[in-house]
Order: sequence, then structure tokens, then C-alpha cells
Amino acid sequence: MKALVFRGPGQKEWVEKDRPTILKPTDVIVKISKTTICGTDLHILKGDVPTVAPGRTLGHEGVGIVEEVGDAVVNFKTGDTVLISCVTSCGKCPNCKRHLYAHCDDGGWILGHMIDGTQAEYVRIPHADHSLHPIPAGADEEALVMLSDILPTGFEIGVQYGHVKPGDTIAVVGAGPVGMSVLLTAQFLSPGRIIMIDMDPARLELARQFGATDTIQVGSEDVVARVMEMTHGKGVDVAIEAVGVPATFDTCQKIVAAGGNIANVGVHGKPVELHIEELWIKNINISMGLVNTNTTPMLLKTLGNARVDPAKLVTHRFKLDEMMTAYDVFANAAREKAMKVILSA
Amino acid sequence: MKALVFRGPGQKEWVEKDRPTILKPTDVIVKISKTTICGTDLHILKGDVPTVAPGRTLGHEGVGIVEEVGDAVVNFKTGDTVLISCVTSCGKCPNCKRHLYAHCDDGGWILGHMIDGTQAEYVRIPHADHSLHPIPAGADEEALVMLSDILPTGFEIGVQYGHVKPGDTIAVVGAGPVGMSVLLTAQFLSPGRIIMIDMDPARLELARQFGATDTIQVGSEDVVARVMEMTHGKGVDVAIEAVGVPATFDTCQKIVAAGGNIANVGVHGKPVELHIEELWIKNINISMGLVNTNTTPMLLKTLGNARVDPAKLVTHRFKLDEMMTAYDVFANAAREKAMKVILSA
Repeated sequence: MKALVFRGPGQKEWVEKDRPTILKPTDVIVKISKTTICGTDLHILKGDVPTVAPGRTLGHEGVGIVEEVGDAVVNFKTGDTVLISCVTSCGKCPNCKRHLYAHCDDGGWILGHMIDGTQAEYVRIPHADHSLHPIPAGADEEALVMLSDILPTGFEIGVQYGHVKPGDTIAVVGAGPVGMSVLLTAQFLSPGRIIMIDMDPARLELARQFGATDTIQVGSEDVVARVMEMTHGKGVDVAIEAVGVPATFDTCQKIVAAGGNIANVGVHGKPVELHIEELWIKNINISMGLVNTNTTPMLLKTLGNARVDPAKLVTHRFKLDEMMTAYDVFANAAREKAMKVILSA
Repeated sequence: MKALVFRGPGQKEWVEKDRPTILKPTDVIVKISKTTICGTDLHILKGDVPTVAPGRTLGHEGVGIVEEVGDAVVNFKTGDTVLISCVTSCGKCPNCKRHLYAHCDDGGWILGHMIDGTQAEYVRIPHADHSLHPIPAGADEEALVMLSDILPTGFEIGVQYGHVKPGDTIAVVGAGPVGMSVLLTAQFLSPGRIIMIDMDPARLELARQFGATDTIQVGSEDVVARVMEMTHGKGVDVAIEAVGVPATFDTCQKIVAAGGNIANVGVHGKPVELHIEELWIKNINISMGLVNTNTTPMLLKTLGNARVDPAKLVTHRFKLDEMMTAYDVFANAAREKAMKVILSA
């Protein structure tokens, strides 16, 4: 089969590779129908994730058809169409029992990281009963791919951890795929105002189409001053960081209101300066985390909701064999006006 | 009347001063029966709180007897014995309506800060219907003084914000009055293990008497290694910072388990380095805040609970006129083996 293989920092290859086989009775082999590329894959290629060994097939998102099932698998059979969760979970360890699947003793984020991933014709999914989801009949497969990672990430780590409530004024710093997923899923809870903040005017225009009530363009406007003006000097109830650099975290510290929440969704490579000397007295809560995908079954049931349709995030489509081109487009997202790319078998 | 007056950094005086008078119909004048000194008063004297003007009477804790009531006051009458909350709240503004009294539009922490405080023979309490509490008959007045600030601070900002649950393993970094208040009030929720961490062996001995299951002495033991050993390498469910310096915040970052909470209770004067590059993937929640005193009515109902009796925190007793000596003892707490001092009229 063909697969996208990491060869070390800065190097990747679309190569012929052996098809995966069942290694444990709880495994399933899935034939990929659709997959995508994540910002995390670009981080890996930059060399930011040293735990990824050269030779690893990348990718942790996708939908496909069950090709083969291990003897212990009960929820799936050959021919079933399935959604692959980016997080693998055994469902039996103490962390899984409290729905903290990101920290499963025999899983977590391992796909395209510690084991071969989904940017290939076939993938082995461990603990399949818990890590795959049956998909609703007639569901849009492109929308489904958004539910492997970015939709639950936006919802769990941004909206839920940020305690977004009806009527809240929220700000999302970063209008990339995950920031947009926050924007879409926040609307389940009807905040009063959603302020999207980014440097790219095209992304802000898209954000307005996706339901943002206000947008602020970094670089051409003073973000903090504008937010304070919009909120009568109080700041926002929830400030959601969806970039992963110190500057955007800092913006969140400056725009959060007393009694508010900062929900960090971005993946960071460096420490940040926390202004606890100013924030301690403001009754602020700061959350962060890797998606657990414990809301995926719930999110699957929302797929009929046109207002938050995750398929909106797909801007480019390729054949699986065009993987190298798709990476080039996604890595130059601003130039290409790309949000999410879909690769189809 | 006599009052302890701030004269600028490093300077205080026990002087004759005019008795306060009713300024607004919602005011009450209280004759102080018992008051105490807080770590915050020492911060003010160091010059750390520049919003305190010279001439200010310090103090934000105490019990007393109602001397005079404004025309609009309905809950209190002359002669009532009352507990003074360290936080003044109007009860009518948007923040008060969501119980965020610390950020009351016409209150918050103002006693002994923006207006004259309780280290005096008489004090004016604004918004008295909401900022004073009737005290239960026969209650121990020394225990009550602990309910002005430190008990609700420990409970709200440490235990509640830290989401302490039955069975949890929690660590409290700092065994001063507020850390001890966390230790006492955490026991309402029956954590499985309470690890108290401090450099003073006398305070750790006291902590064991107050219900700590484990203690670690900073300086003579490697705190992080000991906590990891105690928790099978996982860390604690809740790490509570009760000092207010970067080193103790950092300890909390290092000992918190995946999916855990860091509850910052300490008052900080400097930023801290937040290791978000390690913590983002650990699903950590970090909370901080000024006490709202919204749990004071509940805490008053627990005064009969011998196990968490806050009177245990009182180590030294003085007459109100011995204010300067009491400050000297409290400012040298380690040498004097002092926890809380009580000054009685």
C-alpha cells in the first residue's frame, strides 16, 4: 500500500509500505476512505515532536471501511463504515473510566505518533471497540473527518473547558481550523457574542460566514483596546487561545474579564509568562489539554445542524495519491486560502 | 478611639483617631470585640499594595457589636453581635448577583485598603446588610474571626476552585494560616490524602495535628521526588499554592497529575513562568482569585465541627491596646511559632 512517511525533520515521502496486520485481538484494520492533514503533522515535520520516529506513517484523522477485525472486537464487522478517533482508548484503565481518554494507560494520542497513522491506504486501530465510532447512515464523510480531531478539540478544550454559557461574550484568538471549530461548536451553547481574532482578513471573512458576531484583524487594529471597547472595559467571559504561541496566550490574559476563563487550545513549544501578579485577584480560570474525544458520540448526533456544519471547514480536495501536493497546499494555508484539505481514496 | 494607622512603607502607628460615623444609609458602625492581623497587612506595610494611602486604618477581619445603624439597614440593630466579612458587597450589581462579591462594583476588598479597617475600636461597614453576618448564639468568637477571611479563602479559592473531591490526593504548598485553612476545610470533602509542604517543621507538626496525612519538609527533602514516590509517579489530583512566590507555584506545576488542578491561593507580586509546553497536553486546570466570602454563611454552620475547628489556628492573644506587640509577633511568625494572633477589646 501507499503511505506518507516521516523521514526526520523536514523530510516526508509518499511511499510503498507493507499493509498493517492485526497484532492484538482488540485491533481492527481500516481501509481509509478519507483522511486529512493536521497542524500537528506540520509540527512533527518541523521536528517539534521528537517522540515521532523516522519511518512513522503520519495522520490521526479519517473515515474508512473495516477490512479485518480482531477476535475480541464486538462493535464492528468487516464492511462497516467507521470514524477514526485521533485518540486511542482502552476504556478500561482508571483514566478511561473517568473519560480522560487522552491519558489512557494504553493509548492516548498514539496514531501517527507512536504507531503508524491514517495518511495511508490502510491503518491498524488498537482498542477498536473504544477508538472507532459507527457512523450515521447517509452522513457526509467530509464532515465526519472533521470529527476525528478538530471538532472535539474545539468543543472539549475550548468550549467545555472554557465553560462557555448562553449569553457569554467569548473571543477566539486564532481563526485556523481549530479556532473555527471552537467558533462552530460554541454556537451549540448560544453565546451572546463571538469575537474572532486573526491576522488573515480572508479567515475573518470566513469566520463571519460561520457565525462570528465580531472580528478583529491583528496588525491593523489594537486587539486589546478593541475588545475592551466592545465590552465596556470589562473584557470577555471566555478567551480561547487557538494558536499556541506566547503572544496569543498573552492577548488572552489581557482581554479576560474578572471571573472569566482562559481556555488554551493551542499546542505550545515554549513556556509563557503568566501574569499572576495581576490575575490572582481577578478570579480567573485557565484550562488546557489534549482532546479526550469523549464528546464524539454527541457531536456525531449534531451533524444535521446546518448552522454548525463542520463540512464548511473543507476548502480543498485531493486524491490520496496527491498527498505531497496536499501537504504543500496545507503548509501554505494563507497563500492558498486553505482551511482543511480532504484526501479521498 | 485608638486605631492602627499605615504611615507609608515600613511605618505604622497605634494612634488616637476620630470615631467613624454613618456616611450612607446602608452603613453600620461596629464596635470591635476581636480582630486579627493578616499576611496582607504585612504586604501593605512592605509597600506592596500602593493603593493603600498613608493614614489608612488597616485590618479587614473581626467580630464586634453593632453600635449604630444607617436608616436603610434591615438585617441588623444596635447591640447585635456580628462577623465582619473581609469583602464588602452591595448584593445588587451584576457581579454580586453571580456571587462574585470580590468584584462588587461598589465593594470588593476595600476594608483596611480603600477605606478604614478593623484594627481599631470602631469601624464603619458599608453595605452592612450584605457584608456583615449574624453570628450563631454561643459561638466561639476567636473561631469566628477566622471566618472573616482565611477560612473562606482556603475553602473557596483552594478547595472549591481546586475541585477537591472525596478520595483525592491533594498537596498544599505552604502551611501558613491560609494553607492551614485549606487543610481544615478540605476535610469537609474527605480527600484520601492531604500532603502538607512547608520549610518549618513546627508548622508541619501542627499540620499533622490538624489532619494532614503526610508532610514534606522543604529544604531537607526533595519535594517533587517525594510526591511522585507517594503517588506512584502520577502526581496529585489537586496542588494548592498557599505562599505566593514563583518557586511554590513551580512546585505545583511539577507535582500535578494529568487531569488535575492547580489552585493558586497565594497573593503574588511577580509573574511566574507557566510551563504550558509541558502542561498543555496534561489536561490541567489552573485557578486563582480573591475570596468572595459567598461561603461564609455555610462555613458558619460548620462551627460545631470539632475536626475542622478554626479556633485551632489561634496561637497568640493580646489586648487591642497591644497592637504594636501583636504585629511584631505576627511579623516574626517562625521565631514566635505564631499562626494567627487575636486582639480583644
